[in-house]
Amino acid sequence: MKKDTHVKTRIVQFDVMPGRPRINTDRMLKAIRDARTDGVALLVFPEMAIPGYLLGDLWEQQAFLRQCEACGEEIRKASDGLTVVFGNVAMDWLKRNEDGRVRKYNALFVADHGRFIGPEQSPYPFCIKALMPNYRQFDDSRHFFDLRKLAFERDEAIDHFLTPVNASCAVLGCILCEDAWDPDYALSPLGRLSQHQDIELFINASASPFTFNKNHKRNRVFSAHARQLRRPLIYVNHTGIQNNGKTVFTFDGASCVYDAHGHAVRCPSAFDSQVLTLDIPRAPDTAFAPPETPHHDGVDDLCDALCYGISRFLSSCGIHKVVIGASGGIDSAVVAALFRLVLPPENLLLVNMPSRYNSATTRDLAADLAQRLDVPYVSIPIEDSVALTHRQIDGLRLTCPSLPAGLTLRLSDFMLENVQARDRSSRILAALAAAFVGGFTCNANKSELTVGYSTLYGDLGGFLAPIGDLWKGDVYALARHLNATTYGREVIPEGSITVVPSAELSPQQDVDKGLGDPLIYPYHDRLFESWVEWWNRATPEDILEWYIAGELEQRLHLPMPIKDIFPEAKAFIADLERWWNQYQGIGLAKRIQAPPVLAVKRRAFGFDHRESQMGAGYTDSYLNLKAKLLN
Amino acid sequence: MKKDTHVKTRIVQFDVMPGRPRINTDRMLKAIRDARTDGVALLVFPEMAIPGYLLGDLWEQQAFLRQCEACGEEIRKASDGLTVVFGNVAMDWLKRNEDGRVRKYNALFVADHGRFIGPEQSPYPFCIKALMPNYRQFDDSRHFFDLRKLAFERDEAIDHFLTPVNASCAVLGCILCEDAWDPDYALSPLGRLSQHQDIELFINASASPFTFNKNHKRNRVFSAHARQLRRPLIYVNHTGIQNNGKTVFTFDGASCVYDAHGHAVRCPSAFDSQVLTLDIPRAPDTAFAPPETPHHDGVDDLCDALCYGISRFLSSCGIHKVVIGASGGIDSAVVAALFRLVLPPENLLLVNMPSRYNSATTRDLAADLAQRLDVPYVSIPIEDSVALTHRQIDGLRLTCPSLPAGLTLRLSDFMLENVQARDRSSRILAALAAAFVGGFTCNANKSELTVGYSTLYGDLGGFLAPIGDLWKGDVYALARHLNATTYGREVIPEGSITVVPSAELSPQQDVDKGLGDPLIYPYHDRLFESWVEWWNRATPEDILEWYIAGELEQRLHLPMPIKDIFPEAKAFIADLERWWNQYQGIGLAKRIQAPPVLAVKRRAFGFDHRESQMGAGYTDSYLNLKAKLLN
Repeated sequence: MKKDTHVKTRIVQFDVMPGRPRINTDRMLKAIRDARTDGVALLVFPEMAIPGYLLGDLWEQQAFLRQCEACGEEIRKASDGLTVVFGNVAMDWLKRNEDGRVRKYNALFVADHGRFIGPEQSPYPFCIKALMPNYRQFDDSRHFFDLRKLAFERDEAIDHFLTPVNASCAVLGCILCEDAWDPDYALSPLGRLSQHQDIELFINASASPFTFNKNHKRNRVFSAHARQLRRPLIYVNHTGIQNNGKTVFTFDGASCVYDAHGHAVRCPSAFDSQVLTLDIPRAPDTAFAPPETPHHDGVDDLCDALCYGISRFLSSCGIHKVVIGASGGIDSAVVAALFRLVLPPENLLLVNMPSRYNSATTRDLAADLAQRLDVPYVSIPIEDSVALTHRQIDGLRLTCPSLPAGLTLRLSDFMLENVQARDRSSRILAALAAAFVGGFTCNANKSELTVGYSTLYGDLGGFLAPIGDLWKGDVYALARHLNATTYGREVIPEGSITVVPSAELSPQQDVDKGLGDPLIYPYHDRLFESWVEWWNRATPEDILEWYIAGELEQRLHLPMPIKDIFPEAKAFIADLERWWNQYQGIGLAKRIQAPPVLAVKRRAFGFDHRESQMGAGYTDSYLNLKAKLLN
Repeated sequence: MKKDTHVKTRIVQFDVMPGRPRINTDRMLKAIRDARTDGVALLVFPEMAIPGYLLGDLWEQQAFLRQCEACGEEIRKASDGLTVVFGNVAMDWLKRNEDGRVRKYNALFVADHGRFIGPEQSPYPFCIKALMPNYRQFDDSRHFFDLRKLAFERDEAIDHFLTPVNASCAVLGCILCEDAWDPDYALSPLGRLSQHQDIELFINASASPFTFNKNHKRNRVFSAHARQLRRPLIYVNHTGIQNNGKTVFTFDGASCVYDAHGHAVRCPSAFDSQVLTLDIPRAPDTAFAPPETPHHDGVDDLCDALCYGISRFLSSCGIHKVVIGASGGIDSAVVAALFRLVLPPENLLLVNMPSRYNSATTRDLAADLAQRLDVPYVSIPIEDSVALTHRQIDGLRLTCPSLPAGLTLRLSDFMLENVQARDRSSRILAALAAAFVGGFTCNANKSELTVGYSTLYGDLGGFLAPIGDLWKGDVYALARHLNATTYGREVIPEGSITVVPSAELSPQQDVDKGLGDPLIYPYHDRLFESWVEWWNRATPEDILEWYIAGELEQRLHLPMPIKDIFPEAKAFIADLERWWNQYQGIGLAKRIQAPPVLAVKRRAFGFDHRESQMGAGYTDSYLNLKAKLLN
């Protein structure tokens, strides 16, 4: 049979529902029927297209695994007349994983005219993921037996398994996601496959969440691979959201096909179910895509990811109506403006809950915000309830034989700050959301989450922390973007952007006097970022070293000399230790009970950035540097 | 030099503080000095004795790693005159892990008279953990490069690295924890080492948390190893507590030395810092320990683990005083009795928070409990606050241009149930704990946690869920044990044990009429256990299969026929789906924001049992079985 000069290829960037193999398979079967009608020869689905990817320990349910396997069979049977490549969990019911449970592979199946074909020489009729990501939120090695373990178990060279798949439409080199991100592994799956000159086309099927600026890097890496391989490289990634309980990830898709020169034809848009159909020339080294300028993510991409994540999280939880506590400040205003983009106005309710410490300034800003967004607004004061709590507890006298002298309880002003915050969320917002038949949001940002600048069961409550992965500076940038671009008008009152950030829980937090929160921006944003997001985490030891070397401004990208903020080393150190203690102490204790965070950055709280409650530690080197500096 | 006929050996079961290398090293240095004084030749510390083990992503802080390395050097220098074996993170600063971060090994160091000696042929002067546990709460492969990867990277046979360590006192076979739990791995480190007949003594250094009945299994496995190796085997494990944020683990130690016949000499007691010193005969195959009868854990072991965990968690968080909401029911009574074992009476405060729905029966039981425990007691009613919340929200009228018809909010009776629960915890308990300068407990049990039978920001609040890993049946058994054995008197009023479990939040939950919670014990305990704790998780598909086959009673160890509970299949299925939906739906949403759980069973909620929010799924097979059964 003479082969065509081109392979009519379609990649399916579709919305994978985690843990719903039936739904995903039905969507795939529909895509296969459409492809057959359209004369497609090669149809490519993403990694784990049938089961979904971030499923927690659902992988331990054998009934679920049987379902996934049965769904894979349905795809195989439906592949008559074309080649269908798709990700699924692959089972070997006769073997065990290292935890003693049944053997599972993260696999790429090639269903070719009704039968599965695996790599030449492989004992299995599917391709097995060789490299298992085991960082950030990824838990592949918890569930899947990787190719290196298989080679070790069978005492065979790994090259035996990294061989071409001879599909009817083309000779394929098949890998999964991390397999192409190989620089830090002792094994390069693409390098091994590249020894097979007969491979006409490489496929990387992925399940890769959106991370700010990751596509730029992926583009560089994959483009270089294609150039080096001198073959086209298909990158297919899905859309949808998946989570690990504490952390919610959006999947942007952003699928594309690289030609042998490393130039790409992309799916029309991110965060959307799309197919990309194109004729890929069979002649190696043929260019078919125009060179393009690299795209760096901006605040608009961040905004897209947040809106997509919010919208999909709402529907996945079955929440249609949302109450937002509107303080008049920037955070709740941004949250309201984001939700207004994904919900009809009548499904939102803004509520201001003033105490004696809330200024007319912020109360008016909250009402103004509601008006500008055209959403219902109510004001529910908390004075009476706070007073009741004070009456019920302050002065309470404890007696019992073990306490012969008795004890009188006092509710201090500081304690009353938290009483107010809890009254707002756990009493008002929760009841109001129930009566509104909806949920209520947690408006905490990442700077506050880092150091626990929020009240547990108070402003830390809610069904989702939509801006919990944004530093305070990001929140400002997003506010300006929402006004200037997304809405094209001032939906967030300028006053909410310019007012000093303040919890307004005491006379010491008076916005009209410019008295606000103790965090200093952008310094603390950048400091916390170095602790939480940097690949090599900075610690007080590193910070102090840079401070002493006069490098701190450059290392943290500070716009001002650190001496402008802290003229003396003593104050600098006191501030450093205050927040480091809170980060690993009370901040973490609160994060453990915080709502899920919508992740958009390179490291989000929860299952991505994993933490143990141990309090704050200081190294000997830190203590020595500190002693030297202070003496 | 003529060798002694015996090796004077001491194993140090000590309290490892996670993330505190300075403190751990100081303790170890003290133990080394004592050992030298006592003429010990071989001193053995547990796995990760310097850094601790469950540290989350603290492993990504290079300053911390440098500190651990420096501490290891201190131990080396202090090892003059003896052989010191200890676990630590081992660094290769010139190589990378697969995530691109610096190379880290989970290693066992042998400091021998001032110098480190590694296995013969190894490129490193330390032993590297070969098998990485990657199940339950373990995350080894996230942080540590294992021996198989190293062998692959260097293209060398793994046997090169699994060789004896020629210490001055004896030829040692050194492995770490999971290395001895090899039946499901393609590699047996002990099997490889056993090829070296010159090894005189095997050491397994572990960091192994208490799990109900695990020691029994470990004893079987390790005893068999020693018999097969025909050499003594030292098992050293540490005490203390460590956590992964959501889940807190106790470490019981339970260290011991097995002779070549598999009989063990044990450290005197679990959950205690202990050393075990004994002369181990150098002649292979020599018996030195008496055979013993196997010990199965009972409710007393569970009670020990809970008290230890509570006590250590309190001190690790710096909490000295605790408020407990006492409802008069069994759960809060057991929690109070447990805390009374670890805190002085005046540091506890019991509070009853009645609404109109709380019976005199349970109110009296709460007061009675406090009296029997001799702890302070107060009663703070919630009626006024609940009425205020009702007034503020019920009937609230929403209007705005987008809501032309307006909307009147209603607070239903069901919503008011949750208002009551939140009022108790977030308003009263939180403020009371602040005024008492302490924390307050979450008294939820595992049955309730499984299906979310509790109120978020209500009874699900607290700094720790001390009985969150106990099924309701375990709670009853523990209550009886506390009365009969631990206290030897009725501290938990019999009425709290016999009263029907009830939330008492509505007229439908009247304990005096025997109206309680919707959960049916022991059926739901056993059902939920099969979903959460079974190695191969049961699902509705399995349950329905067993139901149809008439095997359900036997599979779930039910004491009564299922037809006695649900005479008809329809009701059985409705109940099954109700709780399955809650388990994976609202139950999980609540667990994400629940306090840390003190883990004692084979699978605890949080970081041990990992979950993604996806709602409840049903397989095609389940739906087919159900249709068949109902038609």
